[in-house]
Amino acid sequence: MLSGLMMNYQLTIDRILEHGNRLYPYKQVKTKLPDGTLHKYSYRDLFRRVKRLCNVLEGLGVQPGDRVGTFAWNNSQHVELYFAVPGAGAVVHTLNIRLFTDQLSYIINHAEDKVIFIDATLLPLIEGLADRIGGVEHFVLFNVPHGGIETKLLGRVHDYETLMAAADEEYTWRVEGENQAMGLCYTSGTTGHPKGSLYSHRSMYLHTVGSCQAAAVGVTENDVVMPVVPQFHAMAWGLPYAAVNVGADLVLPGPHMQPSALAEMIETERVTVAAGVPTIWNGMYHDLKQNPRDISCIRALVVGGSAMPRSLIEAYEKELHVNVVHAWGMTEMSPLGTVSKLLTHHMDRPQDQQWDVKARQGYPISGVEMRIVNEEGRELPWDGTTMGELQVRGPWVARAYYRLDGGDDSFTEDGWFRTGDVVTITEDGFMTITDRTKDLVKSGGEWISSVELENLLMAHPQVLEAAVIAVPHERWQERPLAVVVPTLASEPPRAVELRRFLEPQVASWWLPDDFLLTDQIPKTGTGKFDKKVLRERYART
Amino acid sequence: MLSGLMMNYQLTIDRILEHGNRLYPYKQVKTKLPDGTLHKYSYRDLFRRVKRLCNVLEGLGVQPGDRVGTFAWNNSQHVELYFAVPGAGAVVHTLNIRLFTDQLSYIINHAEDKVIFIDATLLPLIEGLADRIGGVEHFVLFNVPHGGIETKLLGRVHDYETLMAAADEEYTWRVEGENQAMGLCYTSGTTGHPKGSLYSHRSMYLHTVGSCQAAAVGVTENDVVMPVVPQFHAMAWGLPYAAVNVGADLVLPGPHMQPSALAEMIETERVTVAAGVPTIWNGMYHDLKQNPRDISCIRALVVGGSAMPRSLIEAYEKELHVNVVHAWGMTEMSPLGTVSKLLTHHMDRPQDQQWDVKARQGYPISGVEMRIVNEEGRELPWDGTTMGELQVRGPWVARAYYRLDGGDDSFTEDGWFRTGDVVTITEDGFMTITDRTKDLVKSGGEWISSVELENLLMAHPQVLEAAVIAVPHERWQERPLAVVVPTLASEPPRAVELRRFLEPQVASWWLPDDFLLTDQIPKTGTGKFDKKVLRERYART
Repeated sequence: MLSGLMMNYQLTIDRILEHGNRLYPYKQVKTKLPDGTLHKYSYRDLFRRVKRLCNVLEGLGVQPGDRVGTFAWNNSQHVELYFAVPGAGAVVHTLNIRLFTDQLSYIINHAEDKVIFIDATLLPLIEGLADRIGGVEHFVLFNVPHGGIETKLLGRVHDYETLMAAADEEYTWRVEGENQAMGLCYTSGTTGHPKGSLYSHRSMYLHTVGSCQAAAVGVTENDVVMPVVPQFHAMAWGLPYAAVNVGADLVLPGPHMQPSALAEMIETERVTVAAGVPTIWNGMYHDLKQNPRDISCIRALVVGGSAMPRSLIEAYEKELHVNVVHAWGMTEMSPLGTVSKLLTHHMDRPQDQQWDVKARQGYPISGVEMRIVNEEGRELPWDGTTMGELQVRGPWVARAYYRLDGGDDSFTEDGWFRTGDVVTITEDGFMTITDRTKDLVKSGGEWISSVELENLLMAHPQVLEAAVIAVPHERWQERPLAVVVPTLASEPPRAVELRRFLEPQVASWWLPDDFLLTDQIPKTGTGKFDKKVLRERYART
Repeated sequence: MLSGLMMNYQLTIDRILEHGNRLYPYKQVKTKLPDGTLHKYSYRDLFRRVKRLCNVLEGLGVQPGDRVGTFAWNNSQHVELYFAVPGAGAVVHTLNIRLFTDQLSYIINHAEDKVIFIDATLLPLIEGLADRIGGVEHFVLFNVPHGGIETKLLGRVHDYETLMAAADEEYTWRVEGENQAMGLCYTSGTTGHPKGSLYSHRSMYLHTVGSCQAAAVGVTENDVVMPVVPQFHAMAWGLPYAAVNVGADLVLPGPHMQPSALAEMIETERVTVAAGVPTIWNGMYHDLKQNPRDISCIRALVVGGSAMPRSLIEAYEKELHVNVVHAWGMTEMSPLGTVSKLLTHHMDRPQDQQWDVKARQGYPISGVEMRIVNEEGRELPWDGTTMGELQVRGPWVARAYYRLDGGDDSFTEDGWFRTGDVVTITEDGFMTITDRTKDLVKSGGEWISSVELENLLMAHPQVLEAAVIAVPHERWQERPLAVVVPTLASEPPRAVELRRFLEPQVASWWLPDDFLLTDQIPKTGTGKFDKKVLRERYART
């Protein structure tokens, strides 16, 4: 093979930090601290502290390839860990603070985390399982209140800022090459054990540049980026890396995830790109009704994790003058897969139809390939109606799970990742998730999309949240059941009203057999409806 | 080393075409044919014809690694070759149609081109050297007029469309991996032989994604892209790949490079991104004064190749409502290095100061590292005033020239490419070219920037073009001499007026010792001032 004569320049995460520091040393990282005050420092400070932190890691005995856990909200120290752990050649393993104790200790032990960095506000959650994670050699606490903190984690505990103060600021990156592992993130897994995706420097670098494309998220130096999506969810969708890559200011909410606190930060810090799950934006929308604020500084409200109801997209655009960018991805995809931005041929359509487009999950960004297949694995057409399982591949897609050899059918023989999503794709490449393969309602041999019913129900003015599950049925095998949380501001809706509301919008055999009211829908560690719990609870009714 | 568990997805050019065809089969490639009519076809047509062309190449005996020359204007066949030659595992070698016969035959023989694809409108230029390029096995002509064409290239000549019509549309890419060579481009070289940069699939793929970043050129599906920069100059700055990568329409001027023809295409095709050298835009500006057209559809007039005078940037923005994006790159850099877009802290400055910023070559895009060094190779500060030689590195920068082992000092021992440009860089990362190392005027041990004097002179209302060269001087070693082309519309300026015009703007010892009027300044094959010729002509005066 005749090879090109271009530099063998390795695509590694330290390059992104070097670039950000060299070009934009004056740009800022702002964190809302636990006490509500705003902490600010510059990229230059970030850079220096990352180098110190690398020395701290070496001082704790962290070797290249070791896994280093984080257990924290979105804040500056967590960003420091995002760069320092890979910079020291190790693997930053973001632990989901919302997991149940069993899952958390499983993950820590499965990853063999050597050190865990803990946001002191979350200490009790780790203390509760301290005796089950004996392999962890050190716990390092940050956000420790003045006067210190009492902890049961005896002997193995350090104070982050004390270690940092003692560390040297000179450090040479220990990155060995672009294929080196740099990050580890477990899916919460509603069935079976959580499974880990092990990112490489190359995959995360390419994800960063890929997501910075104008046709993707397209962050620039002119942006103020607020990842509301937690840093323990799929690397906060890569936004901390994207921001540093182009010199955008970073705004981090810390533990202040309440709707009113988020809206206030957006308004006062002039956030231009905010990213989070629909639940967050749904909450903020309802809060803004009571406590109006001007959040029109946002040029892209990025929504992912699950589908944003079309009604909410419309409300944000029409009432709040905020451009919504629907996105879709998965932990196994680093995570960005698609974004839903209008194409040229949508531009002169009526606004109503534009919102229809924006309610889809969108087109794959350059770097992500998609295909849909049926149950036999045969490829299906992109016609906007044919439902099939979505499979993807690309340079930032996982090819296997960490330490899970065999017994896993997530990857096809020809090298694609099975997403587990059932989708349609239009002729012009817009993907819409109709369901998870496991959440589909299979009624009389036909498929009913639980997600579509949920979205329709959540557009009802008296409905705050709605989940639809399959319940066993003697004749039809399965039938849909709707579980509904009413809005606080109104009378709860009656089942007959909800049925009448749906009737003109779906085939009659799609109509749920029952509508049950509840105070709240159980959620998984990632904030999604926990349908496993719902099925257990309602299958017997 | 612990490796990540991500897909080993190769970054190759066929992926870009597959993506463009899969997502945007209905988008268009439009070419202005030699007869002035507009030829249009879709990405789907492009895709199919590329596959056919791969079979044509195999039919002509082209093997992976072979070099295949192109000798053509910007048109659809040239775009087909951009994808088909690499898709067949071979190397597309773009020949500069403006080179002198000696250089052209040298390059063809040095590259050992097996086949050359020729725009029939340019046939005489190749015929003139047919007996000196005996190694070329086949010549394939396109844009052949009805009724055929007579040629002296006996025996080895084929008709493009005849071969295409006979070829199969089924083809499996023969790309072996991302490091495989895919493109070859020689610098015109004002001294010594031309030198070739051999691009790899990986470097061109990364250049494509890098340039699609919002902070770079940032092309999207909403754009209509017109590369006026010839496809034989550094892959038309990568724009054909960028357009297909995101689904932008492509508009190609063919041989119609006259200012009025370009302005007409921009207006009628609603071009949003047009890219070319300052000479082109200077010509178009003056033409638009006589023949007004609305070209405000352009959202980014990308200018590179040499510096655009600040006065011209201002004129485009103020009078024509066109946003100018200054860029800088080199053949050895695939070519994109920097772009000059306003940063946040420029936003509230007066417009006058914003044009100062836009007249700089700009900040390095993510993926490109820069440093400046003095004659001893010591790194210099980014303070906006210290001049030094610019060195760069990155995944799309050359590490060597094709078949030029040893005797070349273009690459440093620690792996950087010496650009040969003398520049300053501001604290916030904006690079300004002050000169080429070889064009600097070294007067009494101090450096005088020929480029800065030229830009100042070209801002004079009676000056169309100005070149400044060093002439030997007994006392000061060298002194600057200005060669000036007056505008047609006015009286030629007198030397004393030009001197008085410069006096308040530069140090007195920078003032050229003489100002000579001429009808035109000799240009190199890439359209730049040919200072070698000027020095030969005026050194004796």
